[in-house]
Amino acid sequence: MPRNLLVAQSGGPTAVINSSVAGIVEEALQHEKIRGIYGAVNGILGVLREDLVDLRQEDPSTISKLRRTPSAALGSCRYKLSDRDYSRLYEVLTAHDIGYFICAGGNDSMDTAHKTAKLAAERKYDLKVMGVPKTVDNDLPVTDHCPGYGSVARFNAVATRDSSLDTDAIYTSDTIKIIETMGRDTGWITASTALAKETEDSGPHLIYLPERPFIQDSFLTDVKEVYDRLGRVVLSVCEGLKNEKGEFVKASTKGIDTDKFGHAQLGGVGDYLVKLISEKLKIKARYDKPGTIQRVSMLCASQVDLDEAYSVGKAALSKAIEGESDKMVTLVRKRNNPYSSDTGLVDLEKIALKTRKVPDEFINKNSNFVTKEFVDYVTPLIGGPLPEYARLRKEKLERKLPPYT
Amino acid sequence: MPRNLLVAQSGGPTAVINSSVAGIVEEALQHEKIRGIYGAVNGILGVLREDLVDLRQEDPSTISKLRRTPSAALGSCRYKLSDRDYSRLYEVLTAHDIGYFICAGGNDSMDTAHKTAKLAAERKYDLKVMGVPKTVDNDLPVTDHCPGYGSVARFNAVATRDSSLDTDAIYTSDTIKIIETMGRDTGWITASTALAKETEDSGPHLIYLPERPFIQDSFLTDVKEVYDRLGRVVLSVCEGLKNEKGEFVKASTKGIDTDKFGHAQLGGVGDYLVKLISEKLKIKARYDKPGTIQRVSMLCASQVDLDEAYSVGKAALSKAIEGESDKMVTLVRKRNNPYSSDTGLVDLEKIALKTRKVPDEFINKNSNFVTKEFVDYVTPLIGGPLPEYARLRKEKLERKLPPYT
Repeated sequence: MPRNLLVAQSGGPTAVINSSVAGIVEEALQHEKIRGIYGAVNGILGVLREDLVDLRQEDPSTISKLRRTPSAALGSCRYKLSDRDYSRLYEVLTAHDIGYFICAGGNDSMDTAHKTAKLAAERKYDLKVMGVPKTVDNDLPVTDHCPGYGSVARFNAVATRDSSLDTDAIYTSDTIKIIETMGRDTGWITASTALAKETEDSGPHLIYLPERPFIQDSFLTDVKEVYDRLGRVVLSVCEGLKNEKGEFVKASTKGIDTDKFGHAQLGGVGDYLVKLISEKLKIKARYDKPGTIQRVSMLCASQVDLDEAYSVGKAALSKAIEGESDKMVTLVRKRNNPYSSDTGLVDLEKIALKTRKVPDEFINKNSNFVTKEFVDYVTPLIGGPLPEYARLRKEKLERKLPPYT
Repeated sequence: MPRNLLVAQSGGPTAVINSSVAGIVEEALQHEKIRGIYGAVNGILGVLREDLVDLRQEDPSTISKLRRTPSAALGSCRYKLSDRDYSRLYEVLTAHDIGYFICAGGNDSMDTAHKTAKLAAERKYDLKVMGVPKTVDNDLPVTDHCPGYGSVARFNAVATRDSSLDTDAIYTSDTIKIIETMGRDTGWITASTALAKETEDSGPHLIYLPERPFIQDSFLTDVKEVYDRLGRVVLSVCEGLKNEKGEFVKASTKGIDTDKFGHAQLGGVGDYLVKLISEKLKIKARYDKPGTIQRVSMLCASQVDLDEAYSVGKAALSKAIEGESDKMVTLVRKRNNPYSSDTGLVDLEKIALKTRKVPDEFINKNSNFVTKEFVDYVTPLIGGPLPEYARLRKEKLERKLPPYT
């Protein structure tokens, strides 16, 4: 008996999560075991609210165009289910005869998916549940990397290189540039700015990840050293930087952050460090904070990432048809040069609520940059080299006058 | 007698100022009246320091590649010349037999160029001085628009649309998004975010320019109105917003800004408004601040802008050869649809230190958005439509259960 498929998108939008939906839907259209192809509006909230749409009514060209449409076309949410919600979820799934439930998201979503699979098993309801990895944070365990990461890495590589060139050009007045990147608990995104570095002297010069405590004195010493040597500094910092006590740097100072409103929303560490540098080193600094633009920029999407996001979607559907359940699709790196990958499977239980931090071998011993090993890891994921720019030779003319004083 | 040409880049880098240099140099290579083709390193500072490079030593392919290289390849500066500096400047120009001096920059640079032309005339030194307009701020008078503006407008249109889609998808938890754009005194850049708007309900919903005083109560009322209607708000604000007393909004509050360090560096109004909204409306907000990335992004450069920047460079050189001096090249809009432009000339005196604000007819009567007249003005400058994305029809499934409560 054909059964219905339900697809949900969850957590922060990315440049490629719609590509995964395209992969799921286009694969589903090939299988007679699938009757209805449904989408949940705003993720698990849409399931609870029974706010479901019929994806068979969409034009095939619209589904295909999802492969290059950023954000989350079905709508997403951040919502943690209560025990009562699981009963409701079960009611909705059974009322619509959902036989296949595929959820694209991060570790919270994988927890939801896992609990849903357990519930169905307990109640002997035939449901295949599959997770599709999706997170710019790249912090899911087991999978080599997560769809969404290659694109945010490409965005930050391009943006950091352009922004560094900006500082190179005008360092006579604007000397220090801070680029604040996303990442609550892990530094994968921040680390990717290293790809902007072209020469020994080009930016970024320093990179700070939340995997290492932020020590103010070491930071100021690092910045001063580069400034004295080059006359300018470009550095990237993670919004989730924490001090030695494990408190967010941004929230660990008085007066200039949001904690007085009772929640430690991140974002603002760049502004904080600008002030710190102004105050302690008396050097002018400024910051760029691309914010959510970095995670949904289609102009900087990585083709490798877009293609992999599509293939994990396809794999999730076809594995569910084969009878797999309570699993997440993984990406397995087959070779690095030329790069190729394959999909695998892992029990959702091993993913749910777990976080993979940037490992020690990817961080330098001074805790202020990444290693070559990290660059080798991330390079193929951004889907090709950065745009090539002109670099003048600048043959100096002979001076004819005494020095300017 | 052939004379030498000196080219300088000044002020903030842009995506297209190198294209102007390519236009100047490639045109100069065609003229027998030009002997040496020199570049000043870091603008007028390089002239004072006699830090000059020989651009004839560059590979022609490098010069050509400047047409798609962001930032300022010769280096730029922000420096106001003292009276003593003008004597030095004169010494350097004469020592190197400079007969043609072309400076690409904003209104400060046009002042420097104008004073240099006056000085040469006083001393009866044969020097043709030409200004090439360059500013993402788009605030030079007389010229229809400034090279650099079309590209920053395109960046902000793309970034705001992507960022709005992000909020559309996850508005169930992240409801208000503020995009902070550049502009110390004028709102041209901020206004360009309007190009992101696709439908009545899509972002940006509100736009605030420094041409109108920022009134906190009106702002909060505007935000609340959109929030109550749509459940989400995307708004763009200029970093240079000022209150009714003409003070920077960011610097007009206590404790959370940089003024304690003795200088009112801009940037941070987004962070300030996030806190204001949290405190007064109790709604979660976040901000994106692309910062310098917006002005040097080559991925979002407008082809119209790149081409016009090249042509104003060429025109500056050829007009100087014809004997023109103490003038800036302007862009003259010939028609809007299909768009075409031509170059003109204006006396530097009419440009120097002058600022063109966004005119009244480009701002709506509620002072919280732009008009259709502005959209018609800016649309051709961004060099083509934004990338097309998929939009799902979202045919609802019939509900089978009581509502979720």
